[in-house]
Amino acid sequence: MDRYRVQPGTRVNLKDWDPDDKANFEKGKSKGLKAVLKLSERLELLQELLFAQGKHKILIVLQAMDTGGKDGVIRRVFDGVNPQGVKVASFKVPTPEDLAHDYLWRIHKQTPGKGEIVIFNRSHYEDVLVVRVQNLAPPDIWEKRFDHINAFERLLADEGTTILKFYLHISADEQKARLQARLDEPDKRWKFNPGDLKDRALWGDYMHAYEDVLSKTSMPWAPWYIVPANRKWYRDLVIGTVLVETLEKLKMRYPEPAEDLDKIVIE
Amino acid sequence: MDRYRVQPGTRVNLKDWDPDDKANFEKGKSKGLKAVLKLSERLELLQELLFAQGKHKILIVLQAMDTGGKDGVIRRVFDGVNPQGVKVASFKVPTPEDLAHDYLWRIHKQTPGKGEIVIFNRSHYEDVLVVRVQNLAPPDIWEKRFDHINAFERLLADEGTTILKFYLHISADEQKARLQARLDEPDKRWKFNPGDLKDRALWGDYMHAYEDVLSKTSMPWAPWYIVPANRKWYRDLVIGTVLVETLEKLKMRYPEPAEDLDKIVIE
Repeated sequence: MDRYRVQPGTRVNLKDWDPDDKANFEKGKSKGLKAVLKLSERLELLQELLFAQGKHKILIVLQAMDTGGKDGVIRRVFDGVNPQGVKVASFKVPTPEDLAHDYLWRIHKQTPGKGEIVIFNRSHYEDVLVVRVQNLAPPDIWEKRFDHINAFERLLADEGTTILKFYLHISADEQKARLQARLDEPDKRWKFNPGDLKDRALWGDYMHAYEDVLSKTSMPWAPWYIVPANRKWYRDLVIGTVLVETLEKLKMRYPEPAEDLDKIVIE
Repeated sequence: MDRYRVQPGTRVNLKDWDPDDKANFEKGKSKGLKAVLKLSERLELLQELLFAQGKHKILIVLQAMDTGGKDGVIRRVFDGVNPQGVKVASFKVPTPEDLAHDYLWRIHKQTPGKGEIVIFNRSHYEDVLVVRVQNLAPPDIWEKRFDHINAFERLLADEGTTILKFYLHISADEQKARLQARLDEPDKRWKFNPGDLKDRALWGDYMHAYEDVLSKTSMPWAPWYIVPANRKWYRDLVIGTVLVETLEKLKMRYPEPAEDLDKIVIE
């Protein structure tokens, strides 16, 4: 899946990244869905091991335009994983207490402890995305944040956190179709938020802001993946594969028991 | 008080800093104590203004060897300040939850919000002091922390926090006298902790570790002051003066009322 990883120091132009791409799995959707299911099962075992060992901390950042599929990834890829070791932190509009502090204050609190996987559904990157595009802070404020964010993630990595960041890349046309579906299907209507149209009207500005994020903050210790996300099954396949491969590289083991259990007699 | 401020990029040798120094106030102890009282009253007013304006965030870091006077500074300099706008965060031995995260996790949570003064009684600097001297982590772990800490404080400063850091500098002889007093005086005995003797035996190592801290982490946006602290009144005078001068430079004002209050009639 290295083709989707943004190499540090390269300039990303999102027009060069095809949201319909499915180059790593040419066997089609139905076999793709089965592959996702297998990945999800494998992930379940790896997460159990991670929790039992209590050594590694895993941070997964999901960013996307509205309807990009963040909720879908969480539902499908993490299907079956024990909620005790996986937390989802959703970052919505900051509270007054959040706003009284620096923008990483609420983020840092939610970072994973040992043995935990934390999924950020949106993240500190909103502070250089929506904040920038909607002029919620002036450039001299948000421009400094790329450095802060790189330093913050470096801290987490140095202190033992494995970080994976996924940008779910959909096309403007695909977003249109998904928004329309939310309007048309009664049981999807609750997800439709008229505010999403305001962001949609700023699509080009958002793409530009994302290009800056992807270009400036993909680091060896905290890489960005640009995930082709027009096809949901392929999106899940890419993310599931990266996750499973990353966790397998940690070479985790169940911890040794405290004493020689063979000598224990339960009477 | 600039003479006590560590200039960024200079190498600190603590033998060159006299803990008995009182160069900025030659009128003696009794007038010195009165001056501290005045500073403390001035601080009370400034803190009220800070709270009312709800704009600035003030972080004060206190570090010292045992008996150095951190508690005394908090008691005397902040005497009379409204506790609603001033919080003391004491960082003792980390909890298991703290240790499951990076070392700045518990620190970041306690940073000041708008309108607040937070005093760190010990701080993240312990993670390059006691951790280093007592070998609680290997060098390849703690050596990276100077960069983390500088980046962290830079984030806080960029996002609107005023940071002041005070190292209360006492001599080994003065510490001996203060520890002996704790043993001798019945109502001070509760403060005596045999563990302090273990740190005292490592005095030279601690001085060396402090020299590194002071040399590497004094920044224009987060300066260290080396406070001569053998004389308690002079220590309080230095800190009180720096605080009052720093707060006065913020040119704070009471916020404008929401409407024209002259037109309001209370019936």
